Amino acid sequence: MDGSAGLIGTDKSIGWRGLGLVSLLANLTAEGLSMSEPTFPLVLKGRSVIQIAVNHPFRIGILGSGQGSNFVAIADAVAAGNIPAQIAVVLSDVESAGILAHARARQLPAQFIPPGQFRTKLDEAAERAFVAALKAAQVDLVVLAGFMRVLKGDFLRAFEGRIVNIHPSLLPCFPGLQSWRQALDHGVKVAGCTVHFVDAGVDSGAIIGQTAVPVLDHDTAETLHQRIHAAEHELYPKCVAALARKEISVVGRRVIWK
Amino acid sequence: MDGSAGLIGTDKSIGWRGLGLVSLLANLTAEGLSMSEPTFPLVLKGRSVIQIAVNHPFRIGILGSGQGSNFVAIADAVAAGNIPAQIAVVLSDVESAGILAHARARQLPAQFIPPGQFRTKLDEAAERAFVAALKAAQVDLVVLAGFMRVLKGDFLRAFEGRIVNIHPSLLPCFPGLQSWRQALDHGVKVAGCTVHFVDAGVDSGAIIGQTAVPVLDHDTAETLHQRIHAAEHELYPKCVAALARKEISVVGRRVIWK
Repeated sequence: MDGSAGLIGTDKSIGWRGLGLVSLLANLTAEGLSMSEPTFPLVLKGRSVIQIAVNHPFRIGILGSGQGSNFVAIADAVAAGNIPAQIAVVLSDVESAGILAHARARQLPAQFIPPGQFRTKLDEAAERAFVAALKAAQVDLVVLAGFMRVLKGDFLRAFEGRIVNIHPSLLPCFPGLQSWRQALDHGVKVAGCTVHFVDAGVDSGAIIGQTAVPVLDHDTAETLHQRIHAAEHELYPKCVAALARKEISVVGRRVIWK
Repeated sequence: MDGSAGLIGTDKSIGWRGLGLVSLLANLTAEGLSMSEPTFPLVLKGRSVIQIAVNHPFRIGILGSGQGSNFVAIADAVAAGNIPAQIAVVLSDVESAGILAHARARQLPAQFIPPGQFRTKLDEAAERAFVAALKAAQVDLVVLAGFMRVLKGDFLRAFEGRIVNIHPSLLPCFPGLQSWRQALDHGVKVAGCTVHFVDAGVDSGAIIGQTAVPVLDHDTAETLHQRIHAAEHELYPKCVAALARKEISVVGRRVIWK
């Protein structure tokens, strides 16, 4: 995100629970951003609300490792005019990933970046390459859609508060892998999915949206996963649209929708 | 629960996931109980399904420490004929608890039993007194309705697999106290309530039923608690009715409704 940065607490978000703004507020507003410019909320640690100006059309970068069904749902919503944004770039750590084929079929910039030597994270060179590609595409928001590698410090710092993910459970329940199987094994009657900001923890960032999905007596891991997936394809575009429309404020762990 | 005991695995529950029954099965069926007698499911550790014969009207004992709004919901459902059972006794560790007044107003046996010297559990004498009162009332099911003390080994063994509780969250999220406040502080968008069997852990037993409840942006701890409470008053009678009708089977951690 380029352009000048300023901090604007809306009455609603500042007033909520009577929380004060962090000292960063003074530093950022000192840069003199006009209060009437369009802004984008940046999540920082602690109880703060930060808004950063966005002076261009909202640009999304999408990262995925798999079929890309959530990417397709988001791309369809963009094409239908339901998300006021552009998909600036689609990146994958898997050369044969369906998400890249889907992106190319839609004439969207799509790129495979080799992940390097590790199995569950990017190595340093790969991390730099991903960050560089996203910066070159001038993305305002990084959307993880089935990206199977944990993002580490330098990546997170490069896009702090501007990375979102979708997870197939009602977090904080069942973080980690195969949440639908965890839910089934635990015997819950209500499962679901969660869109959340990404922080340094595992599936631990502030929650933007959640949808509950029933678990049925005859469910297998596959039927439950399918039902959760269908809910994801509704929830993720809705949340990305709200972010693109700057309709979301963050106070501590609570994400407030306009 | 008195009367002869036999183990009957329904086709559905035995067949489910192809799990075998524990060796206890042979011992119990050796007692020669007719397979056509009405039965009540008993939850044991491990992957087992046990059914114990119930030869009398289903009798419920209710324990509570507070206002007793869940007791009222259950008593109303019994009075309306929606739960085929009798409320055999209502017990409280708090002499002034509303639940005792509600029970007496309905001409139900109600008794205060002093909890002893501890703050969060019953002392040994109190535990014995609670168990004795429930045994004397010949209860088939112990229903915890806002009972604020943890039940320990001897109590659990006396009514193994026949104690249920309601908890104001979608377990396994937010066990323990003030779950609605935990949910709000965590920033979840979906909260709820859970009816579960009681085991030796904290809010960790097999889940019988759950209801999801939305968290709204303007929610305070009080408004969210109220919304969850309203859902509890629907869910708990429904679950107790299914237990009284012997419509519930347990396989491992999964509770299957007929």
